[in-house]
Amino acid sequence: MKTQETIGANFKRAKILVIEDNEDHWILIENAMYHCLSEVTTVWAKTPDQAMDFLNDWSIQEWEMPKLILLDLYMPAREHGWFLLKQIKAMPAPCSQIPIVVLSASDHPADIADAYQRGGSSYMVKPTTIAEWLAYFQELRNYWWETVTLPPMRFSV
Amino acid sequence: MKTQETIGANFKRAKILVIEDNEDHWILIENAMYHCLSEVTTVWAKTPDQAMDFLNDWSIQEWEMPKLILLDLYMPAREHGWFLLKQIKAMPAPCSQIPIVVLSASDHPADIADAYQRGGSSYMVKPTTIAEWLAYFQELRNYWWETVTLPPMRFSV
Repeated sequence: MKTQETIGANFKRAKILVIEDNEDHWILIENAMYHCLSEVTTVWAKTPDQAMDFLNDWSIQEWEMPKLILLDLYMPAREHGWFLLKQIKAMPAPCSQIPIVVLSASDHPADIADAYQRGGSSYMVKPTTIAEWLAYFQELRNYWWETVTLPPMRFSV
Repeated sequence: MKTQETIGANFKRAKILVIEDNEDHWILIENAMYHCLSEVTTVWAKTPDQAMDFLNDWSIQEWEMPKLILLDLYMPAREHGWFLLKQIKAMPAPCSQIPIVVLSASDHPADIADAYQRGGSSYMVKPTTIAEWLAYFQELRNYWWETVTLPPMRFSV
């Protein structure tokens, strides 16, 4: 669909930050990343504080920034997810440019509406079977890595 | 991948707003929508003013809002695209919640970075062949309609 060069740019030194406080879900995500996006380095933050530590460290050291963030919402309350989303969007570029996909077990309309209102790029309701987790991550690959052009992470250019 | 009920919610009275000043590109988009997303009503705005008129009218009349916006950037200058993006994001909910996919011929890194910085959900570089346009729209269907949960448009609930 895209030229090899453009696809190459998405994959080049690509990293994804997964912010997830549920260890069982993290294992499912890690497995799905291994099968569907093995070229991309996955970094796991178990708490909002840990996520901010990673992003701040990478910013200060001008390291490769993640090209996509997967954000759980209830950590443990949704206010923690919203606060983290706000913090990341308020960081200096290129951090503020990273698309954030909210991945939550909640299918409550208010959560979905709020995620888009607060700058989430899209909202995915967590699936229930391993096959569905794999299908979700195959679709993340097809869309974000093979169709969309991800933001250039300036530090690493 | 998702339950029939959730997929049904994405497709229910679904409308997409395509903001595109190039009539040739609009014909390609209309054709791709017909083949890949025929359940979704496509509304074409040829200028930023026309796009704002549509959105304002739908808001005032509490009509169904579009579930996704495809935004060309250079209309004719990119400043017109940025200004429109800012205007839409500043509208009251649910308008401000509609994900905006920037679809532009430009593959300039500054345009891509700016689109994410200014609240675009993702950035797609316009393809060159009809087959590629179809593949792009099939992917828009797979991701936004069949995987992601789109924002609930409150007026129509």
